[in-house]
Amino acid sequence: MKRSDRLVSLTNYFLENPKEHTSLPYFSDKYGAAKSSVSEDLAIVDRVMQEEGIGHLQTLPGASGGVSFIPGYSMENGNRFIAELCTTMEDPARILPGGYLYMSDILGDPRMVNKIGRVLASAFSNLEIDVIMTVATKGIPLAYAVASVLNVPVVIVRRDPRVTEGSSVSINYVSGSSRKIQTMVLPKRSLHDNANVCIIDDFMKAGGTINGMISLLNEFNANVQAIGVLAEADDEEDERVVENYTSLVKITNVDMKQKTIEVHPGNVADRS
Amino acid sequence: MKRSDRLVSLTNYFLENPKEHTSLPYFSDKYGAAKSSVSEDLAIVDRVMQEEGIGHLQTLPGASGGVSFIPGYSMENGNRFIAELCTTMEDPARILPGGYLYMSDILGDPRMVNKIGRVLASAFSNLEIDVIMTVATKGIPLAYAVASVLNVPVVIVRRDPRVTEGSSVSINYVSGSSRKIQTMVLPKRSLHDNANVCIIDDFMKAGGTINGMISLLNEFNANVQAIGVLAEADDEEDERVVENYTSLVKITNVDMKQKTIEVHPGNVADRS
Repeated sequence: MKRSDRLVSLTNYFLENPKEHTSLPYFSDKYGAAKSSVSEDLAIVDRVMQEEGIGHLQTLPGASGGVSFIPGYSMENGNRFIAELCTTMEDPARILPGGYLYMSDILGDPRMVNKIGRVLASAFSNLEIDVIMTVATKGIPLAYAVASVLNVPVVIVRRDPRVTEGSSVSINYVSGSSRKIQTMVLPKRSLHDNANVCIIDDFMKAGGTINGMISLLNEFNANVQAIGVLAEADDEEDERVVENYTSLVKITNVDMKQKTIEVHPGNVADRS
Repeated sequence: MKRSDRLVSLTNYFLENPKEHTSLPYFSDKYGAAKSSVSEDLAIVDRVMQEEGIGHLQTLPGASGGVSFIPGYSMENGNRFIAELCTTMEDPARILPGGYLYMSDILGDPRMVNKIGRVLASAFSNLEIDVIMTVATKGIPLAYAVASVLNVPVVIVRRDPRVTEGSSVSINYVSGSSRKIQTMVLPKRSLHDNANVCIIDDFMKAGGTINGMISLLNEFNANVQAIGVLAEADDEEDERVVENYTSLVKITNVDMKQKTIEVHPGNVADRS
């Protein structure tokens, strides 16, 4: 295979297999090319990926040497996307009774979801994460988008146990905004002991639901490594029960009467 | 930008923007390259993508001419993946009470989910599809995987209405296997009139749930263009209320006593 063909094939391979360690001989065999040629190919792919702000190739030397693609959305790409997101979300037609915001169109657009996932995954790319956890329903697409980039599995907490998941562990928790006692369930098979978990959800007000997930993780002896949300409601900061989270956007000053709303970049923009 | 760099950048662009029509001048400007050079680049990308069995570039000539990437998983790639899936699913440890099968590990693995999505999307790539519809919870990741490939939005039917989605339409339906009357809800804003819909779900026994979704779509004057499921339970064929569906695998002969199970390729393998 010629270099030009190899570059197309390699780019596709890395995007499909993020964070996967692959040896140089694998590529030499696949393409019938010398290791030195493959090394040159990899240098080109690495450089262009960095220039485009989508990630880089990590090379390990030695006998067990090889290469893996580390996805990373550049701050520039990330901030531009967050600014667009703020504008989209400030549309007054989104305001629903109770100060909630209609976001189903954003969460229903796979390309939006994939970009949100990339920004969150980039914020967590230096952490050791074994699994992404979310709660049904709205957080699910975001959880998969983050998990696709970090190449780890997703576990889904439910509010009702299902026969199709086997035995499960459940806890009760107090919902932050409604002060109601609710139940959360996670199948026993979902998590191994001492798993490093990243919690992802779409929206955080006081943080009761996320706090519930943390309690549930304690039952599994798991470690909460990171918490990422698409949007946080700034108004509830006094009552917030969760700390150390990463948000893409912050919703403030929802005025039901005037039908106005402000959306600002969340704390993910503060990270470097 | 040199050809080698452009090839990496173009491959990334097309994989990120499937089914999106882009004009040649856009690439000429972006790369500072002559249109003829870009055309040659595109020919290389197209050829390699076809050889790798991941899709092809569709070029439209003329003033409004341009190019779009049509993802398509080759039959060879698809059948190899389905064969692996059958082996994975035949593990007797998956058998749960009631003849259900534990599939949360498969549905929790983003790479598995993305491959399932690619096979289903390839089966539907010639149809006009405006939106993917699924029902909470397990179908959601599959729906997004298909939607990412076809570059269309996802709408999620719920069993309970939520305050965060505005006004909604609900129907009652009879669950095929349990014969219970259940409710399904879809927010009014989710679908426009005459939308062309593809229904995606993880598992189909008698098909009551999918039939419910079809009834709900009638309320929205929508057209059901395709139905795709990961797994169908073959034993329920006599009672099946849904026709014209596409399945990746078919589960047969679940023997609770002997702890055995057979999984065969579904009808997607019959298509060409």
